[in-house]
Amino acid sequence: MAVNPIVVEVTRGPLVESRHRGALSIADSDGRIVLSLGDTTAPVFPRSAVKPLQALPLVEGGAARAFGFTDAEIALACSSHNGEPVHVETARSMLAKAGLTEDYLECGPQPPARDEDRFALREAGIAPGRIHNNCSGKHAGMLAVACFMGVDPRGYSSANHPVQQRVRQVMEEMAGVPLTADHCGIDGCSIPTWAAPLDSWAGAFAKVASGRGVDAGRAGALAHLRSAAANHPFMIAGTGRFCTILMDRLGASAFVKTGAEGVYCAAFPGPGLGVALKVDDGGTRAAECLMAAATAECAGLSADQSAALSDLVQPSVKNRVGIVVGDIRVAAEARAGLATIPGRP
Amino acid sequence: MAVNPIVVEVTRGPLVESRHRGALSIADSDGRIVLSLGDTTAPVFPRSAVKPLQALPLVEGGAARAFGFTDAEIALACSSHNGEPVHVETARSMLAKAGLTEDYLECGPQPPARDEDRFALREAGIAPGRIHNNCSGKHAGMLAVACFMGVDPRGYSSANHPVQQRVRQVMEEMAGVPLTADHCGIDGCSIPTWAAPLDSWAGAFAKVASGRGVDAGRAGALAHLRSAAANHPFMIAGTGRFCTILMDRLGASAFVKTGAEGVYCAAFPGPGLGVALKVDDGGTRAAECLMAAATAECAGLSADQSAALSDLVQPSVKNRVGIVVGDIRVAAEARAGLATIPGRP
Repeated sequence: MAVNPIVVEVTRGPLVESRHRGALSIADSDGRIVLSLGDTTAPVFPRSAVKPLQALPLVEGGAARAFGFTDAEIALACSSHNGEPVHVETARSMLAKAGLTEDYLECGPQPPARDEDRFALREAGIAPGRIHNNCSGKHAGMLAVACFMGVDPRGYSSANHPVQQRVRQVMEEMAGVPLTADHCGIDGCSIPTWAAPLDSWAGAFAKVASGRGVDAGRAGALAHLRSAAANHPFMIAGTGRFCTILMDRLGASAFVKTGAEGVYCAAFPGPGLGVALKVDDGGTRAAECLMAAATAECAGLSADQSAALSDLVQPSVKNRVGIVVGDIRVAAEARAGLATIPGRP
Repeated sequence: MAVNPIVVEVTRGPLVESRHRGALSIADSDGRIVLSLGDTTAPVFPRSAVKPLQALPLVEGGAARAFGFTDAEIALACSSHNGEPVHVETARSMLAKAGLTEDYLECGPQPPARDEDRFALREAGIAPGRIHNNCSGKHAGMLAVACFMGVDPRGYSSANHPVQQRVRQVMEEMAGVPLTADHCGIDGCSIPTWAAPLDSWAGAFAKVASGRGVDAGRAGALAHLRSAAANHPFMIAGTGRFCTILMDRLGASAFVKTGAEGVYCAAFPGPGLGVALKVDDGGTRAAECLMAAATAECAGLSADQSAALSDLVQPSVKNRVGIVVGDIRVAAEARAGLATIPGRP
């Protein structure tokens, strides 16, 4: 197996303390791979980084319109949220509009991400439930698709349920590769996750970015997803989260989405580029740092916008007393690769 | 730079999803390196994995005896604890015996590791403080050393304070290499951390394991540290923590200590071996898995004892619904290397 390059380094004082290897692919709106760093042909489970693709059936199929889903609700269908009150209320609203309750969710219970939200639940005597699961918005969207299709929503998380078959078909069309049982795992929230090359996921996100290479109906749905996320970045993740911070600053210029195990995907509508990356070891800090650099270099930002991302491109490592003891930074080979991309400012 | 081998793989369904690279060194009581996997000569910040070495001045210098420290308190001086009530009480007791209060701690505040302990503090109206910092036992021990030496305890966390100079000297003697300013970083709790090769840390822990290669006073202090940890494994970490679980099962057969950024050290008194490992990317799950395998193979355990570690050597990955979706396992090259060690059963 080829060895992927070091993409991110973590320093402490005078030394590099830790190193993350990984791979990154960038595709343009013609479906060409314009940057391939490391092995971008090996199958990668995209996990939650493809939630924008998994939400496409909800929007293009008509369920979102039929149930009167707001842009905030559509954004939540693409989210890995913190389980903050507004996320929970929005997921409940989606379920209610589809005529369902949280009992139908098959994602399993999960405590909210933040201490203060866990404290509040405890003080209210409420056990963390399925509605607090970071994937509850995606699941509520999938349940709405089931109801709109007129099929029994129960079992919607199984690979052979009509909803998952539809999601898989849409992802195959977007990624341009078959998603097969021998590349299927079970995700943290129990739906199937299908592994495909980073090149294929980057190609799918180039379509998300540009609306090119798809029919008019899908192009409209992709534009709707992009604007929903751009207008409601808090719904995509929440307080203190990388996706929300980046999109809050950049508006419609970048649609970024994290996934577990060091995966990140992004659509940059300006230059019409799609990005997919995976850190070999699953490290989130490295995936975020590399995605920040890809955004700064390749999203078609102004020099000022790019410079304003420096806290994300090279975040400091602080200790318990608040002293800066090191930093997290993109390694030389990845930096050089990103600098070659035509979409940079 | 040499590329370290993959030491741990994380699977999901039919595929390896994530991969951790790293290096591991095992030294025997004659100071020979009996296994070197990956680059074991590059400097590594040992972080909290060398707390047993940092606690040596407390025991061998006479401070622990002078202040009447119990074995539980000596174990806490070697710990990265969860901030559970018994850890906090024990750290307070150490400070009181030295005539000090937690105001002297320079480790910075940190909330307890577990939700229920954070809830309890909040319900009691207490803000997480320095006494809850996972390093408060080590710091209380260092403060006791300062008091016993008759120097001003304030500033004890600085590299030029007599306590840190003593700690550094002891670590140099144990590791057999100079610890120099150009290899010095600041740790999470603000004391200096000195980088040295894994081979040197493994050699130091072979001395911890065997008491060989040191004078009689130090050998006695090392035996005291070993028995304190073996008798109080809960003090070394806490509920649900790898160090505590492993030592709880194995008693005096293994003295293991975790450090931040994927470092682990261990002393195996049976065969007189010392182990030091570092996962390149800092991943704790991989460091634990590799240390479990090193313990099962090299600690001189019975076949039954080794087999009983399988849940740590190859832990399952479960999702939010409780389904097993993959596992964490030692990769082939590391498995083969560990199987060559004379200390195995």
